[in-house]
Amino acid sequence: MREIFFLSDFGLADPYAAVVKAVMRQIAVGVVIHDLAHNLPPGDLHRASYILYESVPYLPKHSVVLAVVDPGVGSSRRAILVVGERLCYVAPDNGLLTLAYLQDPPRKAYQLENPAYHLPRKSTTFHGRDVFGPVAAYLAAGVEPHRFGPELPVSALTRLPIHLHFGNQGEILTFDRFGNAITTLLATPGQLRGKTVRIRYHRIPVATHYAEVPVGAALAYIGSAGLLEVAVHLGNAREQLGLKQGDRVDLLPYS
Amino acid sequence: MREIFFLSDFGLADPYAAVVKAVMRQIAVGVVIHDLAHNLPPGDLHRASYILYESVPYLPKHSVVLAVVDPGVGSSRRAILVVGERLCYVAPDNGLLTLAYLQDPPRKAYQLENPAYHLPRKSTTFHGRDVFGPVAAYLAAGVEPHRFGPELPVSALTRLPIHLHFGNQGEILTFDRFGNAITTLLATPGQLRGKTVRIRYHRIPVATHYAEVPVGAALAYIGSAGLLEVAVHLGNAREQLGLKQGDRVDLLPYS
Amino acid sequence: MREIFFLSDFGLADPYAAVVKAVMRQIAVGVVIHDLAHNLPPGDLHRASYILYESVPYLPKHSVVLAVVDPGVGSSRRAILVVGERLCYVAPDNGLLTLAYLQDPPRKAYQLENPAYHLPRKSTTFHGRDVFGPVAAYLAAGVEPHRFGPELPVSALTRLPIHLHFGNQGEILTFDRFGNAITTLLATPGQLRGKTVRIRYHRIPVATHYAEVPVGAALAYIGSAGLLEVAVHLGNAREQLGLKQGDRVDLLPYS
Repeated sequence: MREIFFLSDFGLADPYAAVVKAVMRQIAVGVVIHDLAHNLPPGDLHRASYILYESVPYLPKHSVVLAVVDPGVGSSRRAILVVGERLCYVAPDNGLLTLAYLQDPPRKAYQLENPAYHLPRKSTTFHGRDVFGPVAAYLAAGVEPHRFGPELPVSALTRLPIHLHFGNQGEILTFDRFGNAITTLLATPGQLRGKTVRIRYHRIPVATHYAEVPVGAALAYIGSAGLLEVAVHLGNAREQLGLKQGDRVDLLPYS
Repeated sequence: MREIFFLSDFGLADPYAAVVKAVMRQIAVGVVIHDLAHNLPPGDLHRASYILYESVPYLPKHSVVLAVVDPGVGSSRRAILVVGERLCYVAPDNGLLTLAYLQDPPRKAYQLENPAYHLPRKSTTFHGRDVFGPVAAYLAAGVEPHRFGPELPVSALTRLPIHLHFGNQGEILTFDRFGNAITTLLATPGQLRGKTVRIRYHRIPVATHYAEVPVGAALAYIGSAGLLEVAVHLGNAREQLGLKQGDRVDLLPYS
Repeated sequence: MREIFFLSDFGLADPYAAVVKAVMRQIAVGVVIHDLAHNLPPGDLHRASYILYESVPYLPKHSVVLAVVDPGVGSSRRAILVVGERLCYVAPDNGLLTLAYLQDPPRKAYQLENPAYHLPRKSTTFHGRDVFGPVAAYLAAGVEPHRFGPELPVSALTRLPIHLHFGNQGEILTFDRFGNAITTLLATPGQLRGKTVRIRYHRIPVATHYAEVPVGAALAYIGSAGLLEVAVHLGNAREQLGLKQGDRVDLLPYS
């Protein structure tokens, strides 16, 4: 049986994540379910997409990723199953898989319209329990992807307007719990040589690790996913530099 | 061996939940322990009770529910084991099982007075580790309920004054992490037809899903547990409408 | 295979803890990984050390403790493996094991300098994924401690200046999520008889459990790890008494 990796914004102060897992275990007895993250800000699709970008390369081949950040639950947004090169994904088609597609290109996609694989009584607000969880469990148990509903061209999948690229101008994609800003700029050490980073009115030096700058000072560095990040040494860049998602980021010659 | 589902307010910033689980695993080697929720507001019995109401129907038969939200630890509140129709419960007798009893009527109850099933050196502040966890583990391993202490009539079990009912007047039971207000009103689509919801000075339209109202607007709908809920589309009803637990909720004719 | 107990400040809103676990499972297929805590305040070494002090006595013998609270990642701080009497520890050598050493004296220590047991491409900011996690997994799978790098005398291990002791003067070590203050004073009931606790301008009575004082009143008591703690009955001592880590704590004769 395939393993399931579960991402949601359900938090750990409510029963929702536990209920989805209990439903999956009753459908796919013995299935192993791992938590990816549950405590991201409610409805934050950028954060969800970044979490998948960072973790997908480390998940074992053939795993099922269940991703439920679903502010449009009950509306006409599609529910989808995406078969990638390495993994399968079950999620609302609201763009939260955008960066997963970069790590693991989609091969096939299906709409989850076959009610035989949903819970019999479907709520309008908790499709994690009633649709996505059951589909992930049946998929883990061996049901073939085309059984869940009609095929959808992968070109029709919803993508967020996030452009990860090598270059000199990007923006802040999201933040992590430490308040580090993750940007849309891919970077290599060679490319950063002799450069400085500008965000708002801040000029931020490039470094290789936190301790290279004094405590309380800002630095830019290549983060663990290969993206340029901005942090404050033993501090919180988001709060201390007043940064916001979408802020423009420029790589400038150091002078 | 029975599986254990563990609910507490211990959070995930402290060692307490992990210690209880480690103690249980040493008593019942190989036991499978699932987390229900640990991050609810400290001591919030209404939230704990709602979590059980929502999750109990989805837990596998014969499981053990370990529920430790215990602001009265060390006082004279009883420690109990309740045998329901489907599940068993180990908890302080402070009312946090009130709504679990609605989903799974209690058949027998016992007071946890037999020290043979507690840790030998008992603290006055951490009965999760010293009493409830060990009892849950011994129970999961097959010890019979009557061994843990004297029987208690189920009529003597402590219940919170929460009255879930179909009707036109109720109150706010609790909130979830999204800031959605869960009320004490059970509701069906037919019963809500032509109705509007009043809480404080707000008049809130009935809808079937979030996207039926504009972003930022409030709506009332039947939640995933069958209770009337109030939310703000892509927002936080608790904060944006200034709601509090216990606020009166009225269903009025729409006019 | 040994079990792994994982402590970090990675939180559950980011992919980091999940990625470390995925990496470990691919190195040590079938390894069982338990979470100790992940949500502590970023970089809080006192809190991390307290978590280990409270939990180490309850972890099964021969387990591997992976502890990644690593504000100095990428600097010259050492990465270490410590073999204790009961458990093994993989961590940055920044003092976060200080109180674990009291519960489980270190026998041998090694620096993690052998790159054969790291991920091949090492980031400068995420050694949890690239160094500590892989080492913990190889250790769990049976690789012998001396294989990971050169031995380090246990006397050279970094320790925080925390002195747990029986006596009349100590300080606040840390807080838990309930806002209870954990102090550096070890205490027995006999020693506390006829005493009162002074912190700042507060005089706090000694009690055995919360309910012994009125709701909203402060009390001091012997906590679940044997340390003197200060709480507010159904309240938050940290906020309501305005306490800070490092505050002086005096045990005075009651008069």
